Amino acid sequence: MEKAVIVLSGGLDSTTCMGIAKEQGYELYPITFHYGQRHNREVEQAKKVAEYYKVKDHRIVNLSFLKEIGGSALTDEELDVPTEGEEGGIPITYVPARNLIFLSLATAYAEVVGAKAIYIGVSAVDYSGYPDCRPEFISSMTETINLATKAGQTGTDLQIETPIIHLSKADTIRRGMELDVPYQLTTSCYNGEEVACGVCDSCRLRLKGFEEAGYSDPIAYQS
Amino acid sequence: MEKAVIVLSGGLDSTTCMGIAKEQGYELYPITFHYGQRHNREVEQAKKVAEYYKVKDHRIVNLSFLKEIGGSALTDEELDVPTEGEEGGIPITYVPARNLIFLSLATAYAEVVGAKAIYIGVSAVDYSGYPDCRPEFISSMTETINLATKAGQTGTDLQIETPIIHLSKADTIRRGMELDVPYQLTTSCYNGEEVACGVCDSCRLRLKGFEEAGYSDPIAYQS
Repeated sequence: MEKAVIVLSGGLDSTTCMGIAKEQGYELYPITFHYGQRHNREVEQAKKVAEYYKVKDHRIVNLSFLKEIGGSALTDEELDVPTEGEEGGIPITYVPARNLIFLSLATAYAEVVGAKAIYIGVSAVDYSGYPDCRPEFISSMTETINLATKAGQTGTDLQIETPIIHLSKADTIRRGMELDVPYQLTTSCYNGEEVACGVCDSCRLRLKGFEEAGYSDPIAYQS
Repeated sequence: MEKAVIVLSGGLDSTTCMGIAKEQGYELYPITFHYGQRHNREVEQAKKVAEYYKVKDHRIVNLSFLKEIGGSALTDEELDVPTEGEEGGIPITYVPARNLIFLSLATAYAEVVGAKAIYIGVSAVDYSGYPDCRPEFISSMTETINLATKAGQTGTDLQIETPIIHLSKADTIRRGMELDVPYQLTTSCYNGEEVACGVCDSCRLRLKGFEEAGYSDPIAYQS
């Protein structure tokens, strides 16, 4: 059975990637990053998702460095999270070099376990302002990780799989529902409380996605 | 004054990069990684080097994840460090995706402080077996980090500077001596004891470099 490393945040997109990688026949090796994000609940939910899929190994990586250096509304409590949509440009919730760092650490893990693929739930549709969610970045990163590692030297290239990069939130949810993805275990709220706020941009995008997909969201909301 | 992030290990090569970046007029922002390497002395020496250069900020990043996943003689105490030269191919001291990870985290730091360059002391001459020390990797990584970040979107590209990539150890030392690089504060021994062993491959390469350069090595050796 081939192995795949999954960048798993405990959110809706990365959990959908768990379902897709499983359907494609991979043994799942999730890796989760704890980087002082406001929604620390993400890590707890990621553990539940990993348990649901009965994975053999789930790595939780401490990246408190990202909080220490700041620069994002997701890690800096002095900045408010957006609730009225982004205004174009790079969103305030952008975390410097986040996907670059996540994919680099996932590459080391993939190399050690002998995985053939890394799955990451980036979407260029809903969050088009993030530079590190674009297909150009993923393509360049794939070349780079193969130049950096043993894998690329031995002709066994490591692939970065981005199965939802061109899907809207609604299409991602439709795909996940077909695969029985456990959305009741996922969290999306920027505020990271026990019960989702329902008003931050991330909650609104999620609720709109479920509505458009024709399903009801199984998690609880304050409003 | 423009800023540069320096990937600083406390070894001879990265400390030479501190001297070169300073000569080129940059304000220095060193970043050091603690990844469970046997030579933990590296981190202590890196702090001394940073003090020597009177830097404003020195980041020490915990990457114990790299030790946890293993896969290298530098982080796995069950594997012996080499003392009789490498046999070709990728050395046992290769740490999976190390420079990929270091440069990714350095990119986040560079983005937050507004640095224009990242210096890394890779050499394609003495350690030609490491895939992540080759110019092809650095070139691809430069493209990738600019696609991943704000810097690349705003036309202010971040450069990766590898001033010793084509220098032998002896030439690196000659260059460093011209710049008064504090080699007495650096450490190279794979075993990481208070006094260098003098017999591991890293000690032997260093000693040979000083000899060829015509200088005496200012650090102490057991043999």
